[in-house]
Amino acid sequence: MDKVDKYREIIQQLIQQEYAGDRYTIKDVDRELIFDTKNHHYQIVNVGWEGDRCIYGCVLHFDIKEEKIWLQYNGTEIDFAEELVKAGVPHQDIVIRHLQKSKIKSILIHKLSIISPYCLLPDELLPVASFLEMSIGFHSPFMRQFTEYAVS
Amino acid sequence: MDKVDKYREIIQQLIQQEYAGDRYTIKDVDRELIFDTKNHHYQIVNVGWEGDRCIYGCVLHFDIKEEKIWLQYNGTEIDFAEELVKAGVPHQDIVIRHLQKSKIKSILIHKLSIISPYCLLPDELLPVASFLEMSIGFHSPFMRQFTEYAVS
Repeated sequence: MDKVDKYREIIQQLIQQEYAGDRYTIKDVDRELIFDTKNHHYQIVNVGWEGDRCIYGCVLHFDIKEEKIWLQYNGTEIDFAEELVKAGVPHQDIVIRHLQKSKIKSILIHKLSIISPYCLLPDELLPVASFLEMSIGFHSPFMRQFTEYAVS
Repeated sequence: MDKVDKYREIIQQLIQQEYAGDRYTIKDVDRELIFDTKNHHYQIVNVGWEGDRCIYGCVLHFDIKEEKIWLQYNGTEIDFAEELVKAGVPHQDIVIRHLQKSKIKSILIHKLSIISPYCLLPDELLPVASFLEMSIGFHSPFMRQFTEYAVS
């Protein structure tokens, strides 16, 4: 099987597993599976209402570009890079652009502990991150030094 | 031509026009065109970097469901419902779930003018909106009463 076909199958299977888990069960919110198999974009997007409030947000987004898998967005707690490795994708074919929430939190705890001696609870960290304009992705040399994954 | 085929063509044309305009020209940010023609999801998504900061966001998202066009997300200043009408789609086949930014601002100005006698500049309104948890979509009876569009 062609490498891109194999990667397409792996991604679709991972996304469908996550979708089937269906942990997001707000009544008026739909989870959309979006598979653009021609241009290789694969997503889960939440669309709906919480009362009168408009809900819209990507949950998960993979692309295939130049025979590599790009994890463009990961709004879950699951380490999908690790899941790709388990499914047989080599580290050097995985480009991580966005980490799962728990990893973002642990990086922020590490970075904030350098700046401040006070303890911050993880849930308080995400607004602080955008305020401080910290790097929370894989683009920074700080993150990249620890892994074997490809670099965007 | 089948109605759904016609709507698919209209949506793809509108999205491609918006994409070709390419007003978002930050160096390391890609605009992705995502067309899932099987399940009828059509998007533009921005993906990239601003220095070390991870950029990810939907610009535009249409769906076709039950022979109607759903404007799921509109992060532009263009009134795409009006563009659909110009392209020959009847009002009753258009479901607006998300308004363009300028309409959100004008609704907020209207709503805030009831609460506060002070004048707020439009750019100050969006954070105020989330704080007050105001309805900024088309789900509220407040918005729906003014139009002929379909209701979600």
